Amino acid sequence: MDLPPLPLDRTSGLPLAVQLADAVRGAAAAGSFRRGDRLPSTRALAATLGVSRTVTAAAYDQLLAEGWIAARHGAGTFVVGAPDAPPGPAATPARPPTAPAGTATTSLEPGSPCTEALDPAAWRRAWRAGADALPALLADDVGLPAYRAAVADQLLRHRGLVTGPDAVLATAGTTAAVAELAALLPRGARVAVEDPGYQRVAAALRRAGTTVLPVPVDDEGLVVDALPDRLDAVYCTPAHQYPLGARLSARRRLALVQRARAGRFLVIEDDYDGELRYDVAPLPLLAALAPDVVAHLGTTSKVLSPTLGVGWLVAPPAVRAGLLVARASGARPAEAGQRVFAAMAAHGDLARHLRRLRRVLGERRAETVAAIRATGHEVRGDAAGGHVVAPLPDAAGEIAVAEALAARSVTVGLLSSYGLTGPTGYGVVVGYAGPDRPALRRGLAALQEALAGATADVTQRAAISHSAQPV
Amino acid sequence: MDLPPLPLDRTSGLPLAVQLADAVRGAAAAGSFRRGDRLPSTRALAATLGVSRTVTAAAYDQLLAEGWIAARHGAGTFVVGAPDAPPGPAATPARPPTAPAGTATTSLEPGSPCTEALDPAAWRRAWRAGADALPALLADDVGLPAYRAAVADQLLRHRGLVTGPDAVLATAGTTAAVAELAALLPRGARVAVEDPGYQRVAAALRRAGTTVLPVPVDDEGLVVDALPDRLDAVYCTPAHQYPLGARLSARRRLALVQRARAGRFLVIEDDYDGELRYDVAPLPLLAALAPDVVAHLGTTSKVLSPTLGVGWLVAPPAVRAGLLVARASGARPAEAGQRVFAAMAAHGDLARHLRRLRRVLGERRAETVAAIRATGHEVRGDAAGGHVVAPLPDAAGEIAVAEALAARSVTVGLLSSYGLTGPTGYGVVVGYAGPDRPALRRGLAALQEALAGATADVTQRAAISHSAQPV
Repeated sequence: MDLPPLPLDRTSGLPLAVQLADAVRGAAAAGSFRRGDRLPSTRALAATLGVSRTVTAAAYDQLLAEGWIAARHGAGTFVVGAPDAPPGPAATPARPPTAPAGTATTSLEPGSPCTEALDPAAWRRAWRAGADALPALLADDVGLPAYRAAVADQLLRHRGLVTGPDAVLATAGTTAAVAELAALLPRGARVAVEDPGYQRVAAALRRAGTTVLPVPVDDEGLVVDALPDRLDAVYCTPAHQYPLGARLSARRRLALVQRARAGRFLVIEDDYDGELRYDVAPLPLLAALAPDVVAHLGTTSKVLSPTLGVGWLVAPPAVRAGLLVARASGARPAEAGQRVFAAMAAHGDLARHLRRLRRVLGERRAETVAAIRATGHEVRGDAAGGHVVAPLPDAAGEIAVAEALAARSVTVGLLSSYGLTGPTGYGVVVGYAGPDRPALRRGLAALQEALAGATADVTQRAAISHSAQPV
Repeated sequence: MDLPPLPLDRTSGLPLAVQLADAVRGAAAAGSFRRGDRLPSTRALAATLGVSRTVTAAAYDQLLAEGWIAARHGAGTFVVGAPDAPPGPAATPARPPTAPAGTATTSLEPGSPCTEALDPAAWRRAWRAGADALPALLADDVGLPAYRAAVADQLLRHRGLVTGPDAVLATAGTTAAVAELAALLPRGARVAVEDPGYQRVAAALRRAGTTVLPVPVDDEGLVVDALPDRLDAVYCTPAHQYPLGARLSARRRLALVQRARAGRFLVIEDDYDGELRYDVAPLPLLAALAPDVVAHLGTTSKVLSPTLGVGWLVAPPAVRAGLLVARASGARPAEAGQRVFAAMAAHGDLARHLRRLRRVLGERRAETVAAIRATGHEVRGDAAGGHVVAPLPDAAGEIAVAEALAARSVTVGLLSSYGLTGPTGYGVVVGYAGPDRPALRRGLAALQEALAGATADVTQRAAISHSAQPV
């Protein structure tokens, strides 16, 4: 977004950070910011205002503590305490923050589903069918039978996991499921998490009182040899490492399972977009390899939409029993989204949708990869899912590309923000699923311009060619 | 349910509790129990088998630890580890556990909504409208604008709370909202909870690491004078104390707010069925009296159905900001149910539904109260909500009534199970909203027979007549 004027007076005696926080609060109160507006990074704002980054970081910390702004890891910093953006029409879903003054922001941030591939008639049919059963009298601890059957079928067809509806638990999505699993661990439990990785899950684990231990990732996925000792759990994304995009290699899968059995820890397999591969078949799930130590998580967020707010979990009996005991006196996943997903599955609409989705996303990925490669930059990540990573050599390069994109009202993920304790590398994380095709082309054109002015990361390219035979 | 044979051998040398746990496991594995089957109470099973209650309690503890069974406070003990009950047709909502061999169980347990009052055409319209917007690309931290507007309107019309959509946060329901609020409190925070009270909320508070302090309840609701010092929060149900049914008196409301302001603690006002009163108007909400110290919670579970899986929260700015910061890196409420509720509200269907619901529940309450009074027993609780309490003088009376009802395949809540640290009183908690009319009549007939054989609780009757002027 364009910044309103944020006047700073170096002669006033007031610390610049205090003045800056005041100016942001004043702009928010005056309506110059609206809830959902994205703020520039502390680095970018420091450059704009000609102050040190210490000043902008201190001001943001203060505004964060006061609840004016909120940081979403991987997505940036947003205004939350100012007046709302004008409400949309009834039931309009949330949209990414928009830039002021007629400039539509194009979001190439990862994590969105692809609505282009969804047949609106199928979507409507599924919602209509959701009303076929009367409202339930009781909330359900395990999930609706029809939903669990649809998930078991989905796991069998698309992920090769032979399981039954009885083994499936509905969840309120991946973050909620990780929080439920973490609550079963002793306080202070040691949980290894891929670094770079999924900040929302790391935050959920920390909030549950566990100690998050970062573990490096390379082009074979999680570096199993680098796992610390005395673990209680490992969180990983074996099908498509988030965000770097590697598939956990077969030998590492075996090594991880051996470590888990020897060390008696739980492996949390987050299969967030495992249905989406465009070249080779996926490797067997960890949950198929070692159902005794793996809690498998899936979600409807990437293949359909976060609107449904549901996912699933298949876990060893003791873990499953622990979850059920907690749910018997705790929160339970909502049924509404389960009804819609089960109805999509019941009439073949889900299978048709997944076929279309793979085709559409495969095309979008090819377009995205070609656009990036045309600038001399490399692309990291398997032909899978809804995002790719274009590495950049350093922080300055990442900031320059982000600012060039911001000037064109395009947002992307920044690789540095996926580091659990600080940057593990630099680059842009480009999501190609969310925008419509014209927006994707506008975004990719802007990305090409931005990358054309940046130095390519030759080290990363070498690492990628080195791992051309990942299995 | 009818028990399968559970053979115990007193000469085998194996402890009876171990034998009993084995027998239950064996029966579950053999399919004699199914998931969702309700087990007899430890007391009732001890009487049936002719063993001491220590034996049955130890066996249940073991089965609970192994995940074969789960205890739902106020609802009993259920099989969770056995094979599933046969799945119903697609998207059939969960039903209360059913008795075997053709005997339909009638649940008069509290907590269910009343589907009789719901116009199926309106329900279908709302679900159809839920598909009008495309699936969202991003999950939403605050809730859909249309949902928040519908809630603000509902709070204004039915609860007299003047607020705006901006002040409303969507939640994933009351238990989830309490867990979110508890996570903002320091570990070990002291939270006072009504006793008897809502066990699910007490469990959520304990799970979040807070210390739950029981506070007594009388016919003016929470005994504010009995609140301990150094509190961080108070959880209460001022409109309709759960389960005893009193309305927090006006003088106690003022006292509670004064204590909260002086002691700087948060008041969590759970208004779970505040829309449902059949005589006098409700008192103003605590949130209207003291928006600076009250977090107000509402839910769609009682006025529509737990199927939607959504509720709402209106809280002081600092609390709200804290919740948003946590959601920015945590789980967020699902949209699907919000869409349905917003659509119900948009075309007047929700207002029509609430009018019909009040009429239907008022009739059902009158029928229930008349049935109980005809046996010489008293009824406790305001003319509100979906349940009443019939006090009984002691544990023996409560067990006798519960067993007489079980013999007629009728289940009710047992007042003793609502005590946070043990029974605070005895009686049956009778929910009249859930069953259809024929089932309600069957259930009430069985209740009359069961109560006719039990001694009435004269002490309670005196207490009730003493508090005939509650305000």
